[in-house]
Amino acid sequence: MVVSHIHPDGDAIGSTLAVGRVLSKLGKAVVMVNESPVPHKFRFLPGAGEIRSPEEAKSAAPYRRVIAVDVADAERMGQVRPLLADDAEVLNIDHHPTNDRFGTVNLVEPDAAATAEILCRWSEGLGVEWDPSLAACLYTGLLTDTGGFRYSNTTPEVLERASDLLRHGVDPGEVADRVIETVTREQLAILRRALDTLSFSEQGKVSWMWLTQRDFQETGAKEEDLDGIVNYARNVAGVDVGILFRETAEGTVKASLRSREIVDVGELAQSLGGGGHARAAGCNLRGNRKEAERAILDRVAAALRRGGC
Amino acid sequence: MVVSHIHPDGDAIGSTLAVGRVLSKLGKAVVMVNESPVPHKFRFLPGAGEIRSPEEAKSAAPYRRVIAVDVADAERMGQVRPLLADDAEVLNIDHHPTNDRFGTVNLVEPDAAATAEILCRWSEGLGVEWDPSLAACLYTGLLTDTGGFRYSNTTPEVLERASDLLRHGVDPGEVADRVIETVTREQLAILRRALDTLSFSEQGKVSWMWLTQRDFQETGAKEEDLDGIVNYARNVAGVDVGILFRETAEGTVKASLRSREIVDVGELAQSLGGGGHARAAGCNLRGNRKEAERAILDRVAAALRRGGC
Repeated sequence: MVVSHIHPDGDAIGSTLAVGRVLSKLGKAVVMVNESPVPHKFRFLPGAGEIRSPEEAKSAAPYRRVIAVDVADAERMGQVRPLLADDAEVLNIDHHPTNDRFGTVNLVEPDAAATAEILCRWSEGLGVEWDPSLAACLYTGLLTDTGGFRYSNTTPEVLERASDLLRHGVDPGEVADRVIETVTREQLAILRRALDTLSFSEQGKVSWMWLTQRDFQETGAKEEDLDGIVNYARNVAGVDVGILFRETAEGTVKASLRSREIVDVGELAQSLGGGGHARAAGCNLRGNRKEAERAILDRVAAALRRGGC
Repeated sequence: MVVSHIHPDGDAIGSTLAVGRVLSKLGKAVVMVNESPVPHKFRFLPGAGEIRSPEEAKSAAPYRRVIAVDVADAERMGQVRPLLADDAEVLNIDHHPTNDRFGTVNLVEPDAAATAEILCRWSEGLGVEWDPSLAACLYTGLLTDTGGFRYSNTTPEVLERASDLLRHGVDPGEVADRVIETVTREQLAILRRALDTLSFSEQGKVSWMWLTQRDFQETGAKEEDLDGIVNYARNVAGVDVGILFRETAEGTVKASLRSREIVDVGELAQSLGGGGHARAAGCNLRGNRKEAERAILDRVAAALRRGGC
């Protein structure tokens, strides 16, 4: 069995499919499983239709030989975890620094930009040749976990691997178009609502946007449609901290924070019971809109005045 | 003298600076000139402050040794052209397939994704070592002319060169942030206006947006702030043709067209007196809003029905 984390991203799906394909090429019987359905934008990847739900994979349970990819701890398998035999041998292939080494064998490389990067070496080590399908899955993992080769984890090795994958038949325009460029109408509709509320403070160093439950109801947008919207606030020239506030169905306010270089938003979110890292973090707040906004904006302003955290 | 085209993009600026730096390293006296000011987002590049206007470069005219980079024909130098001596020797380094070989020596490689890609080889050939500054200029050219490594001209060679440049000290996160991610308030304001008008036809295969003169006046946005906005229409799932209509100060309507795979918008724009290529094109239309809209939308619908052009 090959499994990745719930709410899978491009590296999770790409890595699952790559391992599945490598095992098939080696003549192994393989079942790919994920608690969550494959997000629409990754369904063009070869083999995506073969990833099973826990329900569909149940009949062959318990699984004794498991490869977990991009899974930082076993809990992240969600409802797939109960399908593993108590004495299952687990190969844990991951790049998260927080990986707790839950595997029988742990191939954990925190310096890798994506699990797919580890799998490039792994598949070579097994002597498996990259066909265009396998290459497309690996490329998707590299592309998405580096923010389209835009994050600072885009190492020379990542681009060298990506170049290699193109030589093995990947169409870079097609992959980027499908997994990054394409948006749904709901995504654009909720983006428009967010942009309508764009506000600035602290001489333009702080920028934020608001989404209400009504915005979600009227646009039909869901949580996953918010992907990247907070960056519109953070990306404005002169801004250091960009924030997206949104009302949740439970009546709390969720804040997503991104920063360029001054404020450590991870620390800030932590002080409010949330988490994340210095440049990207989030937290959940009780209280009404005004209170939640104040709680965050006051702390951001204070952090800016202190010159950081 | 090193010169590139008017309204310079990342490849024009990156290539100008790269050639300037290579010549300096070889001990040559060099003047970099451009008719247009360096766009704000490229001003972080080392040496960007040394690019002169034609006025500033005039005192040393006429120039007898000229390197033109990313210039498809001599007209594209704009007001820099009169500064060239009549008998100037011009090295024409470019990747546009339409380059008319106006140079004394022409180093034109239509298969290169960017002029910067040619300059990677050229600088190596001259035995000039890449320092982090030179590498950042070359990387900017590669990154911008491939749409952030997302267009189909992202070849294995491009990513291999990009990988090499990272090894020479480029910070990929910083460059991408400055030249691609960062937006002005005016850009977001005009994007919001455009999204407010997003419309669909032909069962969602055609999507378009409108900007009026009033939108420009009220947001303070300029032509250059429209960069990429038409892609929001084209990128919607299911859309083949995305269009941005805008009223010009002269009372005409300008249409930018992008397509995914069915309609040849280059041909369509040409039939209306415009130009471009199959996936990206534009034209200027006389007549009022409704007439301009009809002229384009009817032709797009017909092309879709014919299954292409």
